[in-house]
Amino acid sequence: MSKQLKGNAVVGQSGGPTAVINQSLVGVIEEVCEQECITELFGAVHGVEGIVNENFIDLKHLSRNELEAVARTPSAALGSSRIKPDKEYCARMIESFRKHNVRYFFYIGGNDSASSAHIINTMVQDADYDLKVFHIPKTIDNDLLVTDHCPGYGTAATYVTHAVIGDDLDNRALPGVKVDVVMGRHAGYLTAATMLARRHEGDGPHLIYVPERPMPIEKFTREVAETFEKIGRCMVVVSEGVTDEKGEPWATRLQKDVVYDSHGNPQLTTGGAVLSDFLMNELLKTKVTKRVRVDTFGYPQRSFPGLISPVDAYEARYCGRMAVFYASGDNTAGSICMQRFGKGDRYRIETFVTTLASVAARTKNLPDEFINEQGNNINNSFRAYVSPLVGPLPEVGYLRK
Amino acid sequence: MSKQLKGNAVVGQSGGPTAVINQSLVGVIEEVCEQECITELFGAVHGVEGIVNENFIDLKHLSRNELEAVARTPSAALGSSRIKPDKEYCARMIESFRKHNVRYFFYIGGNDSASSAHIINTMVQDADYDLKVFHIPKTIDNDLLVTDHCPGYGTAATYVTHAVIGDDLDNRALPGVKVDVVMGRHAGYLTAATMLARRHEGDGPHLIYVPERPMPIEKFTREVAETFEKIGRCMVVVSEGVTDEKGEPWATRLQKDVVYDSHGNPQLTTGGAVLSDFLMNELLKTKVTKRVRVDTFGYPQRSFPGLISPVDAYEARYCGRMAVFYASGDNTAGSICMQRFGKGDRYRIETFVTTLASVAARTKNLPDEFINEQGNNINNSFRAYVSPLVGPLPEVGYLRK
Repeated sequence: MSKQLKGNAVVGQSGGPTAVINQSLVGVIEEVCEQECITELFGAVHGVEGIVNENFIDLKHLSRNELEAVARTPSAALGSSRIKPDKEYCARMIESFRKHNVRYFFYIGGNDSASSAHIINTMVQDADYDLKVFHIPKTIDNDLLVTDHCPGYGTAATYVTHAVIGDDLDNRALPGVKVDVVMGRHAGYLTAATMLARRHEGDGPHLIYVPERPMPIEKFTREVAETFEKIGRCMVVVSEGVTDEKGEPWATRLQKDVVYDSHGNPQLTTGGAVLSDFLMNELLKTKVTKRVRVDTFGYPQRSFPGLISPVDAYEARYCGRMAVFYASGDNTAGSICMQRFGKGDRYRIETFVTTLASVAARTKNLPDEFINEQGNNINNSFRAYVSPLVGPLPEVGYLRK
Repeated sequence: MSKQLKGNAVVGQSGGPTAVINQSLVGVIEEVCEQECITELFGAVHGVEGIVNENFIDLKHLSRNELEAVARTPSAALGSSRIKPDKEYCARMIESFRKHNVRYFFYIGGNDSASSAHIINTMVQDADYDLKVFHIPKTIDNDLLVTDHCPGYGTAATYVTHAVIGDDLDNRALPGVKVDVVMGRHAGYLTAATMLARRHEGDGPHLIYVPERPMPIEKFTREVAETFEKIGRCMVVVSEGVTDEKGEPWATRLQKDVVYDSHGNPQLTTGGAVLSDFLMNELLKTKVTKRVRVDTFGYPQRSFPGLISPVDAYEARYCGRMAVFYASGDNTAGSICMQRFGKGDRYRIETFVTTLASVAARTKNLPDEFINEQGNNINNSFRAYVSPLVGPLPEVGYLRK
């Protein structure tokens, strides 16, 4: 393939939205305007669907104001898609690319999107069509391989930490057992972030359960009851993906009619009220307290507009820009990754490119070092990992005797 | 009763927390320090429970910094209580007041707290004990009689509006039916506030259901399906207290084992996932789309720390101050109310005192003028009522062809 291709570019967004996925989109637009090798930039409406239907928006002629308004807006401005393209679907995409002289394809999404990008990249090589294919990471789950972390995670972590700080204050005022169910089918990163809510003596969450450790229901109820008996209240955070002793997700086991998306992922959080009801009923059975409440945080975790992490917004934009930058150079395909340098105030990232295959389809788990021995909490060492990624947290004040 | 009593004061917080209930507490503390008739100020830990157990915190000697830290913190810093005192309980409270020479009682809470204050006020008159009793309004439901609105409502309205703005963007990106269940057992004020999320053409919520109008399930599913067929998506907000054609709350009807609190109120939001599951299943039955999601917003509505409405915080503080101011003058008992003057930028409030009896126990509904004829949406006239109470809403940007 020629190192510098001349032609048009397509950018698309895929999967569950995040609060900063539009920052990556705007990063792509900005950098395309800097690179002479790219003539026009087409935004694919609803991801791969927009490509096969030739439903494009011209993105190269937006004003600075329009770009910044889109950048600060949560959720995918181009529209997203849950379609996982098979080979036949990919062939139709390539046909559309040929027709519009598209030589650059930027796809913003999670591991399923990386997988789609990988299939397309393989197919164009076989078809002898010159196309550069780049995946730009996006996921609140933070579960992509190779990269240090993912754009979208920091803001979701900021939101859930705020919610747990508020909920813990609520639980102090009206003591009881409170359980919050947080998104994360396979990886406990988002759930683990709520450990940042612990800032003063006695602050919750007192227990945190992630999918990386089994959560037999008797263990869960016993540990909650023990905490309640010891301190008179208990604030618990649980991943939607927590499993039984055999590693089967409770939510899957409990749902009689599990709804699967087109990627074969079970839909857990909504309509997965079955998990919250189950946990509540099991806790009530222990009779440790009548005051048991369970909330499932839901979509605000991925699309809440009020509390976007500045670092997350910056990094999402930067990953978008860098994808175009790498594509304009020698690289022909890959996924953008972040590497971390420095700790605390000295935190900064640099980007690099990894192969699409190394990110496609698989997911990363929360490393063992961050989970405590009993498998019911997150170690303090996780604070150094997650702190630089989240926005400012609210200061609170207590009255003590 | 002598017009100016000399003695100590007790302040307590009651019922479900709000994000600004501590502003009212700090307002009381500030004004007590200005009034010579009050010697000491005792904070009752967990409301009426703290009074009978003589569990008090000295509040008159806190630093400015400590006060401001508490003021900006959501949830009841003194601890709250769900106990509804009967006459025997009230007699024990009066005994505690006598013992500590308490001549002023300030109780921050909703209509149940006004009711408790009213009982105590009646009993001290019979017992010939000089005590001034003041209720300071607090509720995210905004359902107290007489006052124009209640401290706590504006911030909860800010939160739910943010959440719905984000959710509507999410629903644009991945079109389907999305239902959000918002707090409000009897009154639709909080649910109605989400109409503020409509700022551009096509913005949701497209349908809003409040407890003030019956919501037969066939009407609900038909109206959602019609909207989806017309615009290709549907964003719906539903009060937790929505009722069937006979006025029975769906959540109550659906729950086999309804949990009641000590005031006799059914607990709907948490463990009331039964409502969200029911709505989801009924919508799926219409087969209008497979993409149906339902979220129940839960406790973040009342305790989220990140987005406190400045007007709400100011008014909550002011109501606390004014309660002490009125008590120091000729008034012997009452509930603090707000009256509204001016519209838009000229909005301001003044306070006045109403009788405890006029606020006790009963609740106010959303006025008819704000609900549309079909009973499935909120009229634009509501915007003028609610706008001055909420904090700044995020600007968003769209990409259009």
